[in-house]
Amino acid sequence: MIEFWYEFASTYSYPAAMRVEHLADQAGVVVHWRPFIVGPLFNEQQGLTDSPFNAFPVKGDYMWRDLQRVCDREGLPLHHPSQFPRNSLLAARVAICGLEDGWTPAFSRAVYQANFVDDLDISNPEVLAPLIASVGAGPEHVLAAAASAPVKDQLKDHVRQARERGLFGAPSFVTADGELFWGNDRLEQALDWAVRHQDMESA
Amino acid sequence: MIEFWYEFASTYSYPAAMRVEHLADQAGVVVHWRPFIVGPLFNEQQGLTDSPFNAFPVKGDYMWRDLQRVCDREGLPLHHPSQFPRNSLLAARVAICGLEDGWTPAFSRAVYQANFVDDLDISNPEVLAPLIASVGAGPEHVLAAAASAPVKDQLKDHVRQARERGLFGAPSFVTADGELFWGNDRLEQALDWAVRHQDMESA
Repeated sequence: MIEFWYEFASTYSYPAAMRVEHLADQAGVVVHWRPFIVGPLFNEQQGLTDSPFNAFPVKGDYMWRDLQRVCDREGLPLHHPSQFPRNSLLAARVAICGLEDGWTPAFSRAVYQANFVDDLDISNPEVLAPLIASVGAGPEHVLAAAASAPVKDQLKDHVRQARERGLFGAPSFVTADGELFWGNDRLEQALDWAVRHQDMESA
Repeated sequence: MIEFWYEFASTYSYPAAMRVEHLADQAGVVVHWRPFIVGPLFNEQQGLTDSPFNAFPVKGDYMWRDLQRVCDREGLPLHHPSQFPRNSLLAARVAICGLEDGWTPAFSRAVYQANFVDDLDISNPEVLAPLIASVGAGPEHVLAAAASAPVKDQLKDHVRQARERGLFGAPSFVTADGELFWGNDRLEQALDWAVRHQDMESA
């Protein structure tokens, strides 16, 4: 088992979301998708009110170049979004709605495609509606549910859990024994760890 | 050719310094060792007056755990230094002194061993003297040269070059065509890039 903590506005969460299922399948590890919002953690831990990639342009310049290289290596398309970061709150709440029925992974990949390939505003319900329909759910019903108190509370609870696990960025991976890995480039190591821990449990 | 930009106080520079020569040899890439001081960049780019790993404890906690995993994977010993970060100015100036005679790589590895394995104060000339002697240079002569204006200026020039290349952390790698890679975990990709660029030059 591995928890995949991701944020729809996060650039490196995009390749991680596109890679995680395939690599986890190969490793025989189950993925628990954990959409959350990283802004509150950035703010309370580092005093940031914007993405660190905007607050510190030299880091932003590097990140966009590195992300292009990462996507090139993985064969993933990338279009530098005309707005960054985009407000990810509504998309995260919709992703929460799909956890029980199992469409969260497919919906999440569609949101990343919208944000980082098609350059669409993922905070707009009209952008999200066809993505919800594409995974076989009912946009009207789901968007209403996403605005309900229980779903809002569940997303808040995800942020609380993320804080408890020591997260400070996205994407992050947490194994069953609580080991934390930060960044798309730690996905393979997180899966290795999860496999070795499973072995120990069954030994 | 690859430039290896490193800082003696930087935790992830330690595994990078221990790995770079072997991997570059295998790839047929020449390494140019570029000791520098990252503090001025942290300050002017991010307003930091301490290591980000101290300024933001949640990132520091993660870094020490991740560094332990990185070192375990590489078979490198690691002792959490009793002081972090250590003042690296004198060690960097000494490293500058060895560039012409070629003992900078061996001396630099010895400094990382002192800081991150033997828990020694690398700002102390008495700690550095035996490390200088161990690479076949004269401690008294070298320590005097390290305090001279030309060596101080050369280190300042390294910081200036680092800024020009878009660096914001250590370790970093820069290829002949100016491609920047940040972090020990980008070493392999930087070497790949350098090899492909060499191929293009000779094609």
